[in-house]
Amino acid sequence: MRSNFSIVPRAFVLIVALICSADAAEDPLPSWNDGVSKKAIVAFVAKVTDKDSPDFVPVPDRIAVFDNDGTLWCEQPMYVQAVFVRDRIRAMAADHPEWKNQQPFKALLDNDRIALADIGEKGLVEIVTTTHSGMTTEDFSLLVRNWISTAKHPRFDRLYTACIYQPMVELLTYLRANGFKTYIVSGGGAEFMRVWTEPVYGIPPEQVCGSSVKTRYELRGDTPVLMRLPEVDFVDDKAGKPVGIGKFLGKRPIAAFGNSDGDYEMLRYVTSGKGARFGLIVHHTDSEREYAYDRESPVGRLVRALDEAPTRGWTVADMKRDWRVVFPAAK
Amino acid sequence: MRSNFSIVPRAFVLIVALICSADAAEDPLPSWNDGVSKKAIVAFVAKVTDKDSPDFVPVPDRIAVFDNDGTLWCEQPMYVQAVFVRDRIRAMAADHPEWKNQQPFKALLDNDRIALADIGEKGLVEIVTTTHSGMTTEDFSLLVRNWISTAKHPRFDRLYTACIYQPMVELLTYLRANGFKTYIVSGGGAEFMRVWTEPVYGIPPEQVCGSSVKTRYELRGDTPVLMRLPEVDFVDDKAGKPVGIGKFLGKRPIAAFGNSDGDYEMLRYVTSGKGARFGLIVHHTDSEREYAYDRESPVGRLVRALDEAPTRGWTVADMKRDWRVVFPAAK
Repeated sequence: MRSNFSIVPRAFVLIVALICSADAAEDPLPSWNDGVSKKAIVAFVAKVTDKDSPDFVPVPDRIAVFDNDGTLWCEQPMYVQAVFVRDRIRAMAADHPEWKNQQPFKALLDNDRIALADIGEKGLVEIVTTTHSGMTTEDFSLLVRNWISTAKHPRFDRLYTACIYQPMVELLTYLRANGFKTYIVSGGGAEFMRVWTEPVYGIPPEQVCGSSVKTRYELRGDTPVLMRLPEVDFVDDKAGKPVGIGKFLGKRPIAAFGNSDGDYEMLRYVTSGKGARFGLIVHHTDSEREYAYDRESPVGRLVRALDEAPTRGWTVADMKRDWRVVFPAAK
Repeated sequence: MRSNFSIVPRAFVLIVALICSADAAEDPLPSWNDGVSKKAIVAFVAKVTDKDSPDFVPVPDRIAVFDNDGTLWCEQPMYVQAVFVRDRIRAMAADHPEWKNQQPFKALLDNDRIALADIGEKGLVEIVTTTHSGMTTEDFSLLVRNWISTAKHPRFDRLYTACIYQPMVELLTYLRANGFKTYIVSGGGAEFMRVWTEPVYGIPPEQVCGSSVKTRYELRGDTPVLMRLPEVDFVDDKAGKPVGIGKFLGKRPIAAFGNSDGDYEMLRYVTSGKGARFGLIVHHTDSEREYAYDRESPVGRLVRALDEAPTRGWTVADMKRDWRVVFPAAK
């Protein structure tokens, strides 16, 4: 009898363990609450990977594009790259005493929000090209690498690279496990992102499309380098996103993920292709765990894409409702 | 006794079969003659993939870039894309009676080599933008697809896509089998190549960098398209090749393959990086099986890269000596 008793609980434990591991294996998106958004994602992946489905998509065509700011990581209270620019200006100010009396630098150094709001696109371009050019691509990467390894989010007091969205990281992994190639298509600087996207998102530099400055091939002694020039090459935002997709990918992806009207044209372009398509908007609705913003926000403004989502068949992921956690657990 | 006799030859056959299959498995480059070029390729791949080697390179950094014209397929007697352009002009001439008296179109329609030599860069840009713009990217791809499926090389009487170099196709496959990502970095049009590189070389559109025209996002009815504009966006040749690598890849590849001075800067840029590097030049030395040309050729001119190859450690593959076959066997 004794052996029978001992067998029953062991078998029971085994069955429970099997059920649990099966559950875990079946849920590649544990940070997503069960609901319409998660269901829509899983249903899309299931049909494009099922050879017997009329919506089956061969592996080479399984390309998914992701906006970065506000879609994969936190963009509030200001774009991370804008913080990098501000910190660069501060670090460079010692060598540029004239900036104390020269806009747009003065506004930035004084943290003068009223003057800053007034610098316009010309001022912005001047700031970005000043901080992002006059060095080789490799020196620039080193600057970003050093900065991003210590810079912290002012509210969450964690590295910016830890202010990424855990549910979206799971989504990237899930798509790749199903044969997708995952790309970033962002208004941010390509070379700003390429330094850290591989360790943080599993997206290698060559799968990062972004805005860029022009570069020139030069020799330093006998060593060729690419020198960053103070001239904008490409702005990968709004209608520039589909253009960037054409440049970099040369084909229409089948899934697009964004969070603002800067992603509207990309969402339209991707989801209007033939066959199964998927578009998703991350809607920031959670002021407690992250931020709540859409129509009125200067950063990540979301109006048109949100209004048209229902008729265009785009899934709206409601951060508060759909995400079990927002950021990865602290390490 | 009988059973013994029968066993001996069967064992012998088995051993021979094993040896032969082992041989085949050990030679991933059967169209390369044994010699210094093949040895150099195999030695490079062996050391960068051996975890115990000081030259080991992790998979994400194993990126190899290939020129296309003259490196992966035949570029003589004229660039394939130039033939495409000529055929487009002829096809479009019916709708453009004015071209009969208007350069540079007249020269092309009359096949007037003297006038053609005189059209200059401006004429060339006019021809290319006329034939390559004013349509969506998808319509352009369709034009290329239709043309390339029937256009034949005048001398070899086979499809241009069958005038690819079998040894180089084996090399692409060999590198990929060893964890490399293979990219094309070509002066040719990105969208001209992207249509056929995947079936022909196993290189998907998103791994093809090339020259490009600007495009614009537009709506056709309710469907977004990319319209090709009559304006050059980027020339991916000479010093433009490293610039293109910076744009598209954001990192220095570890191996580069070219055949002309148009690849010189790319070879320099790639092979001057830290750690193990590999540069190879395809030298066209075989007028019987293909063409023999270098210093004096208007197409694929090779002077500086050839002269500097020994001091820069670049391997020169001599087509006549190193390649057992040039083109794939006819199907």
